[in-house]
Amino acid sequence: MMAKTQTITSPDGKLSLVFELQDSVPYYSLAFNGKPIINKSRLGVSVADGTNLLKGFGVKDFNIASYNENWSPVLGEYKSINNNYNQLRVMLAQPAFQREIAITFRVFNSGIGFRYEFPQQANLNYFVVKEEETQFALAGDFKAWWIAGDYDTQEYNYTTSSISAISSLWAKSFDGNASQMPVKNSVQAPLMLKSGDGNYLNISEAALVGYPAMHLKVNSKTFLLSSHLTPDAQGMKGYIQTPFNTPWRTIAVTKSAEQMLMEGPKLILNLNEPTKYKTTDWIKPVKYVGVWWEMIMGKSSWAYADLDNVKLGATNYKNLKTNGKHAANNEYVKKHIDFAAKNGFDAVLVEGWNEGWEDWFGKSKEYVFDFVTPYPDFDAKALNDYAHAKGVNLIMHHETSGAVTNYERLLDTAFRFMKKFGYNAVKTGYVGNIIPRGEHHYSQWMIDHYQRVVEKAAQYKMMVNSHESVRPTGLSRTYPNWIAAEAARGTEYEAFGGNNPEHTTILPFTRLMGGPMDYTPGIFQTKLDYYFSGDKRFVKTTLVKQLALYVTMYSPLQMAADIIENYERFPEPFQFIKDVAADWDDTKVLKAEPGDYLLIARKAKNKEEWFVGGITDENARTLNIDFSFLDPSVPYVATIYEDGKDADYITNPQRYHIYKKIVNHQSKLNQKLAKSGGVAISLKKATKDDVKKIRK
Amino acid sequence: MMAKTQTITSPDGKLSLVFELQDSVPYYSLAFNGKPIINKSRLGVSVADGTNLLKGFGVKDFNIASYNENWSPVLGEYKSINNNYNQLRVMLAQPAFQREIAITFRVFNSGIGFRYEFPQQANLNYFVVKEEETQFALAGDFKAWWIAGDYDTQEYNYTTSSISAISSLWAKSFDGNASQMPVKNSVQAPLMLKSGDGNYLNISEAALVGYPAMHLKVNSKTFLLSSHLTPDAQGMKGYIQTPFNTPWRTIAVTKSAEQMLMEGPKLILNLNEPTKYKTTDWIKPVKYVGVWWEMIMGKSSWAYADLDNVKLGATNYKNLKTNGKHAANNEYVKKHIDFAAKNGFDAVLVEGWNEGWEDWFGKSKEYVFDFVTPYPDFDAKALNDYAHAKGVNLIMHHETSGAVTNYERLLDTAFRFMKKFGYNAVKTGYVGNIIPRGEHHYSQWMIDHYQRVVEKAAQYKMMVNSHESVRPTGLSRTYPNWIAAEAARGTEYEAFGGNNPEHTTILPFTRLMGGPMDYTPGIFQTKLDYYFSGDKRFVKTTLVKQLALYVTMYSPLQMAADIIENYERFPEPFQFIKDVAADWDDTKVLKAEPGDYLLIARKAKNKEEWFVGGITDENARTLNIDFSFLDPSVPYVATIYEDGKDADYITNPQRYHIYKKIVNHQSKLNQKLAKSGGVAISLKKATKDDVKKIRK
Repeated sequence: MMAKTQTITSPDGKLSLVFELQDSVPYYSLAFNGKPIINKSRLGVSVADGTNLLKGFGVKDFNIASYNENWSPVLGEYKSINNNYNQLRVMLAQPAFQREIAITFRVFNSGIGFRYEFPQQANLNYFVVKEEETQFALAGDFKAWWIAGDYDTQEYNYTTSSISAISSLWAKSFDGNASQMPVKNSVQAPLMLKSGDGNYLNISEAALVGYPAMHLKVNSKTFLLSSHLTPDAQGMKGYIQTPFNTPWRTIAVTKSAEQMLMEGPKLILNLNEPTKYKTTDWIKPVKYVGVWWEMIMGKSSWAYADLDNVKLGATNYKNLKTNGKHAANNEYVKKHIDFAAKNGFDAVLVEGWNEGWEDWFGKSKEYVFDFVTPYPDFDAKALNDYAHAKGVNLIMHHETSGAVTNYERLLDTAFRFMKKFGYNAVKTGYVGNIIPRGEHHYSQWMIDHYQRVVEKAAQYKMMVNSHESVRPTGLSRTYPNWIAAEAARGTEYEAFGGNNPEHTTILPFTRLMGGPMDYTPGIFQTKLDYYFSGDKRFVKTTLVKQLALYVTMYSPLQMAADIIENYERFPEPFQFIKDVAADWDDTKVLKAEPGDYLLIARKAKNKEEWFVGGITDENARTLNIDFSFLDPSVPYVATIYEDGKDADYITNPQRYHIYKKIVNHQSKLNQKLAKSGGVAISLKKATKDDVKKIRK
Repeated sequence: MMAKTQTITSPDGKLSLVFELQDSVPYYSLAFNGKPIINKSRLGVSVADGTNLLKGFGVKDFNIASYNENWSPVLGEYKSINNNYNQLRVMLAQPAFQREIAITFRVFNSGIGFRYEFPQQANLNYFVVKEEETQFALAGDFKAWWIAGDYDTQEYNYTTSSISAISSLWAKSFDGNASQMPVKNSVQAPLMLKSGDGNYLNISEAALVGYPAMHLKVNSKTFLLSSHLTPDAQGMKGYIQTPFNTPWRTIAVTKSAEQMLMEGPKLILNLNEPTKYKTTDWIKPVKYVGVWWEMIMGKSSWAYADLDNVKLGATNYKNLKTNGKHAANNEYVKKHIDFAAKNGFDAVLVEGWNEGWEDWFGKSKEYVFDFVTPYPDFDAKALNDYAHAKGVNLIMHHETSGAVTNYERLLDTAFRFMKKFGYNAVKTGYVGNIIPRGEHHYSQWMIDHYQRVVEKAAQYKMMVNSHESVRPTGLSRTYPNWIAAEAARGTEYEAFGGNNPEHTTILPFTRLMGGPMDYTPGIFQTKLDYYFSGDKRFVKTTLVKQLALYVTMYSPLQMAADIIENYERFPEPFQFIKDVAADWDDTKVLKAEPGDYLLIARKAKNKEEWFVGGITDENARTLNIDFSFLDPSVPYVATIYEDGKDADYITNPQRYHIYKKIVNHQSKLNQKLAKSGGVAISLKKATKDDVKKIRK
């Protein structure tokens, strides 16, 4: 008879995972440096047909293996990533139903992943998942950075509390959203945690394919977290055809926050499949400007006319009176193309280019956009030709208004339109409740949809930036044209109620664990009373912190989100946005604590240039910058963009100071950051002339 | 101030409709020949946003008009149809919400139609229908021919009872179905009724577009019927953008059952919009044979291999072992093409031609068929070429398994495939529960879908025969390429439990009111123990009744459904199927009583040929056939196909007798029909030689 217990450790021996079968039920537990970090936690899946995959198991086999390789992401934070783990595959037999499943555990130095595997077999061809019953029994009342579980949105500010306080804080933890269904006393993954003895944990999932997104139900008394999958319209979770493997459930564990930021995303990427794309040379980092922020803040409109009721194909836009606020017009888009070309941007995003925006939201309207009919003042051919002549691309915008059935019907038509005019990237959007009605942004059908769009886009060699989509789970490894996603509270919320000053110190520990975010930083005119007298809205950072975000918020797709006039008003700090890279050879997290501060250095891809970004929460602070990451053989010219004297995100956000300095790998810098301030540094190898000139 | 009551009568004055507003609520009532037939019945729609369209109305205007025209259907029972009605349009204002709606009534000599109209206006652009609250207060405890209300199927045998007995009979009225959701104490439209004083009523709907199908809740005590719309996944009924008109609610009223069969379908067609198609010459009647019945009865299979689990694109069918029962193979299809060509059929339906049938049903599998990948033994190009060379078309089969999202994604691809190989017609199928999950076969989203398929098909000049779709509501006038539908219990059920002998005497009074049914008659080998020793299943008619169905069940699409060997075994009666028309200049219902018998004569389109079909229920009976419909100027050769001596649908179903006879417009014939038997007669103008020869 097979043993019922098996232990497997990380390659460095510090993480130790125990699998055991007790009373025919599978459990796992996890220890770090000899101390329990996840107590004994149940594993299994409940099914809809009255049988179960929860109990009555015997161990059929244990299979142990090791793996070590390096691989290179198409776009990323590192030129090369090491994938090194020990693996335990447990084959479980369930005699009552004459079927078998497997649970595979991979133990890395910085965490674990495990998944359920359902081989094809006579008695397990199709089944419906009622719920996944995976547990994460935290070994203590850990500190948590969390947002409420929700089937339709992640666009919330974070709450920081102990696990024991979540139940009392939960109802106050979220505000309104265009589509939301909060799940009581649950939180979203990735969930960032810190143990009493100072270890960092991150619980999430990798390779979410063909399965609904996982939330975590919280028991504030026992500190037990349990998986809770996003349901479909009928309350079921997943329709499974074997062979099938669930996404990986991941627990990253590190001694420091800095390690967590470096190793957490690698853990998730390593648990995704390599890409099957034959070519990837059409996938490139994109820095872009856009016709966007002015609509977000209400200065102009997506809509061409002020109407409450339009019908595609019936409403004759040529006969309509424009509202005079329509931003996506030929003249204004050309201005953006000129600006992009002049300042070295790759692309211009244009939202509001197509018919239908007059009554697009909140009507559960299915045929809301057709994705191919421009407004009368937007000439798709002329503008694309104009842009291409200047070495710039337009970024297509496919807002679906949640009407996904409509988008799927028109998907090929929409991509053919893009191909015809030479677009190479699309921003998709899913604002509002989903059609098929009753489906959710994170239910299995929608997970399948996002993948379908990305695969279809790849057929047309298009890059995808999905907004209001599910949070990434490392799928950019498999589908590298999925270059970014929103799936969290981005800069737009600075106009909708505000992002807490700490927000961007937490996102890299949560949402960004799974992949890049199109956060759209770069707002220089942070106070909106500049446009609208008396308007109290403001972006809750200093101007310099906006610069730092280009380094701290990893994304190969980076927007300079402010209206271009503001960049013309502030050419000096704008230089940093022009210079900063979006794709990297290496990343060093120098200092980090979620909710407090970040300091990150990154080396530009294939260039001897480094960029440093540092940010702080609502507290001013001094960060000591150690430049030991630099090539020791040469000095560098550092261009330092720092908060100016008396800068403060509320009273004096735009005050900045820029200076140059020669540094080398032994340099240290005590850098002051204002309240919700930042620092941004570009570093280039110095010539002798540079050294002479700057030292003077 | 406007009057609150308005009366409008039919052109012949016999039907009289009263509209009245009482306590700000709209009502109507209906009298026939001076006697109430529908008592005062409420009108209105409840909406989901907390407002209502039920009360608080004032009459803003009454508008009265008349209309009289003749029009010609592309395919039909009549060469020309008269559309003659008086119309009352009531404009209602609802001051509390500052909005207006209209109710339009059309009163014909044989019934009425009314609908709600929602003009576009500032305070009514979008709304969600929670329920339609239309009442039909029957003036007595009428006799009803009914099937249970169900959101997903109409494939039930009929129950005949008084309205007062429906509540006690309801739960026993239906059997199992591949997808069903019966609605307690409700019945389906078209509902056939007979008043105590012998008038015939039929309650139904016309022009079901953009709205869910209506069922009728029955109050067995008050005889009040109330509309009950099919809900979506979230329980809502309809998402409306104004301007919008609901489908027409129809009440056909006639003094006789014969008139009901002739006038009821015209009433519904007249309430539909004329077609907008620019050409219709590609829409033709179709008589066909097919690879079908042998699968239905279990003799062969749709599937190529015996597997429980296949994946399109992954399963390599070329390497699979065939199950030896796959009917849609090249050789067998060619045999059907030869047979069709030899016997003058237009087309051959081939089901089971494409990959995916191994595990197609009941799995809620979305990517179940791709509609373009034939099994290895089906050569789409070669078979179409072979058929076309012989003047025959293949009929495409698009079974969706209810996975409608999948079908919509692939719709263009599927039609392009058809075009490429020269198909001109498709049979669609919706067996099983619908995806989007939670939607129903008759919910608004699916109603939109059926229309979308028909419109897309028209772009490709394809005819559509939809199975498991919503019952027709006269839309073949607007979309004449929607040549037939199933949407009721067809011949297939003779292999699944049986159709009551009376079934086909009721269908023309119910399901067929809205349009043609692909009933697939023509089963000569009625007893299935011919194939499977000891099998108790049998078709519950005589062979001759199967012939009569080609006349009594109107459809421009007619199948000879039996396996072709049986037609070769019985060439004499098969001659009638070869001869019978499928499109008509004229139709005379000679005798009819729902549930008992039918006797119908039809004149072939553009030919001096008549065909007569008579059928009876489980009782043998004699029908007196009066040939006064014939051209009085000439004699005709009647070929009479009658039940043979001792024929009986149970003990002796295949006994027939065929003889010729000279008849003229003064002829009468006392025709005996066996239990569940029939009579079929073809009539051609007689030459002098004919007269001489036959009289001998």
